[in-house]
Amino acid sequence: MQTVEQWGVFELAASGAEFRHEHRIIHIDGFEDKVRFMPDTVGEWTYATSTGESGVLHVTPPSPTNHGPVRVSNTFHFTYADGTPYIPIGTTCYAWTHQGDALETQTLATLRDAPFNKMRMCIFPKSYVYNENEPEFYPFLGTLFNPAFFEHLEQRIQQLGALGIEADLILFHPYDRWGYSKMPREADERYLRYVIARFAAYRNVWWSLANEFDLMKSKEMSDWDRFFRIVEESDPYNHLRSIHHSKTMYDQSRPWVTHVSMQDDNFAKTAALRDAFRKPIVYDECKYEGNIPKRWGNISARELVRRFWLGVTSGAYVGHGETYLDPHDVLWWSKGGVLHGESPARIAFLRRILEQAPPGGLNPTGEYYPCAGQPGRYYLYYFDYHQPSDYEFDLPPAASYQADLIDPWNMTITPIAGSYRDKFRLNLPGQPYLAVRFRVG
Amino acid sequence: MQTVEQWGVFELAASGAEFRHEHRIIHIDGFEDKVRFMPDTVGEWTYATSTGESGVLHVTPPSPTNHGPVRVSNTFHFTYADGTPYIPIGTTCYAWTHQGDALETQTLATLRDAPFNKMRMCIFPKSYVYNENEPEFYPFLGTLFNPAFFEHLEQRIQQLGALGIEADLILFHPYDRWGYSKMPREADERYLRYVIARFAAYRNVWWSLANEFDLMKSKEMSDWDRFFRIVEESDPYNHLRSIHHSKTMYDQSRPWVTHVSMQDDNFAKTAALRDAFRKPIVYDECKYEGNIPKRWGNISARELVRRFWLGVTSGAYVGHGETYLDPHDVLWWSKGGVLHGESPARIAFLRRILEQAPPGGLNPTGEYYPCAGQPGRYYLYYFDYHQPSDYEFDLPPAASYQADLIDPWNMTITPIAGSYRDKFRLNLPGQPYLAVRFRVG
Repeated sequence: MQTVEQWGVFELAASGAEFRHEHRIIHIDGFEDKVRFMPDTVGEWTYATSTGESGVLHVTPPSPTNHGPVRVSNTFHFTYADGTPYIPIGTTCYAWTHQGDALETQTLATLRDAPFNKMRMCIFPKSYVYNENEPEFYPFLGTLFNPAFFEHLEQRIQQLGALGIEADLILFHPYDRWGYSKMPREADERYLRYVIARFAAYRNVWWSLANEFDLMKSKEMSDWDRFFRIVEESDPYNHLRSIHHSKTMYDQSRPWVTHVSMQDDNFAKTAALRDAFRKPIVYDECKYEGNIPKRWGNISARELVRRFWLGVTSGAYVGHGETYLDPHDVLWWSKGGVLHGESPARIAFLRRILEQAPPGGLNPTGEYYPCAGQPGRYYLYYFDYHQPSDYEFDLPPAASYQADLIDPWNMTITPIAGSYRDKFRLNLPGQPYLAVRFRVG
Repeated sequence: MQTVEQWGVFELAASGAEFRHEHRIIHIDGFEDKVRFMPDTVGEWTYATSTGESGVLHVTPPSPTNHGPVRVSNTFHFTYADGTPYIPIGTTCYAWTHQGDALETQTLATLRDAPFNKMRMCIFPKSYVYNENEPEFYPFLGTLFNPAFFEHLEQRIQQLGALGIEADLILFHPYDRWGYSKMPREADERYLRYVIARFAAYRNVWWSLANEFDLMKSKEMSDWDRFFRIVEESDPYNHLRSIHHSKTMYDQSRPWVTHVSMQDDNFAKTAALRDAFRKPIVYDECKYEGNIPKRWGNISARELVRRFWLGVTSGAYVGHGETYLDPHDVLWWSKGGVLHGESPARIAFLRRILEQAPPGGLNPTGEYYPCAGQPGRYYLYYFDYHQPSDYEFDLPPAASYQADLIDPWNMTITPIAGSYRDKFRLNLPGQPYLAVRFRVG
């Protein structure tokens, strides 16, 4: 009897197959004469291959750490398919899978102890400053796909999955000296269909159509629409889809865009973005902690931590990256390796705070200071460079709240004595970069 | 023989007079049967009063500390009339002249040791949070002007002048419980003409048409145009004129606006403002150092110092204000008194740096990081929250430059060994909030 757990990967030797469960029929394209399928429902499934073979697949309940793929939930937030909240705390190592086993293994070890549960990573090799080395594997052998390249990549995707990390796979990017950014139309499409047939059955996969799509001068805007439609129609599981820009924003209102991936650090825009697109807003790139000469790669750890708090209290999510100079050009943002910065510990601290909040996500509450929460239930204020020595809060009178003073940099949570409701004044330390949390007591 | 120094004040008992020097005739309106005149040219003047009396006035060269009124110079900057550079480093004590002699004397003593050379101050008393006290003097006695009010105010203007401080007089404001913000049209005009006849002869006077003009609901936009025209036509000396807004910006391109007074802290706008208006940009209000609950009154000293540097390196000027809670509600921003904050010493440090720069003002140089300077001569970079460990500068190759590392908060200037030209790389400390200065060696 063939069995697989719900949201696990079932493999079959075939060039294509149809999987059936009760009234549903799901067509799965193969790759390299193999079919990979991720069933989303427990119970008995049947299948029929394109050459007429058939069989039965028993889908068992998922193992405890398997929550399924991540979905949009509550308009502006995410959950796993089983309803477990997913709070994206991403990082970026664009080319980490092109660095050879030693460094890639080190990256995975670093991730084991890091706070990140999403990884932005390119499929194609990358050619850019601090990343001039040739990759170990190339994706194509003449007109064929290189199995070694894709086997290697799918191993890394699986390893991320085992660490609870979503692989936000960047399908195209402009940092290229080999020609992957300038392939003909047919090659682009074959590539997309192949990648999806091969990787879509991994539950931790997201599709990022491109990094800085608008810097790929050989593509038109209509190409991106077409790519999105190909991804949408080829992916039986409807994994999350986004696109990342440099200067020109893609029309994020298109129905195939599941969430808005931003390169920006003006979190005052969040409200307008939420109103305009009614989708989760993820500031995947808000500049990186580091010390390289580039403006986008040398903000201080304190500034990046500040941005995480501004983003979260604006009702959005924020991503991390790190670019400290290294004698061997091993910068986390491109190659992975180890983390040197001071922000990850503070991001872990923030992640724990968000995980302790009621499920369903935090939305901006229209307060005088940046604040996200759940009306009548939970409020997280961030005072940024403001340092009031006291402040009159105005919470709904129906409930009574416990208050905590939070120091995001020193990572302390100090309960404030008493219980609070309605309008009340709290004395505050008169220091900048502090937060206050209210929870129903 | 009647004498007065150039840009000094000559007084005459008359309801009006004409002053002549060679081909020029200047008509001066009187107030309270007095005429005040500020001659701008050395030599022999004659005058004739409205009642037919006449006389000769010998205008002598100015005393060493008298540089005349401040003018716009070099499109985006200021000089005194004698050509001495004037670099505005303003502060705000809106109602300091309505606090009684003890506090007002203390304010003057504070200003003697402070770095500020411009004071934003209201003519009318102010009614607002932390400023609920009645003024010592009221401007009107029935339908007459109250001489005690205006004598007192002009004493304060003179005292500021003796300290080298320009009095940026705010003619109207909305923080009012007595009715000064809702006077009839004729009363407004009489008031304007009176104030100008009385104060315009003081060389250190600027006219700020209003603070937050758009919050004065009893005035239309056309009223502000009219007020500007009255000020322009009534002031024989063409003192600087501006207007300050809350949300709605006055059309700063109008010819009678001499410089753009901003309430804003987005210094990325400076380039657009300079391009649009071709006038000096003065961020008179970019929020205040302090600890009150209001967002506009509790930024940290470090943040205000940062804003001064961002403003200056964007090609603009920035103003200070301070709002620390006080048991007697003596907040500098409204009442004056003493300064408690940590920013003034750093603002003094910046002022000295700007005074050491070549005259003519600093303009943005289109660099990758915020930088203002004079091409081929002087460059002042500010790295804000960026912390590059090195950076390749690209200066014009013709000259050779001496470099200094500047720490705006710790107020240190550390010469960097060597001399530099063209493209060169400098190692930097990898810490945020530092500046680098290049001067032709």
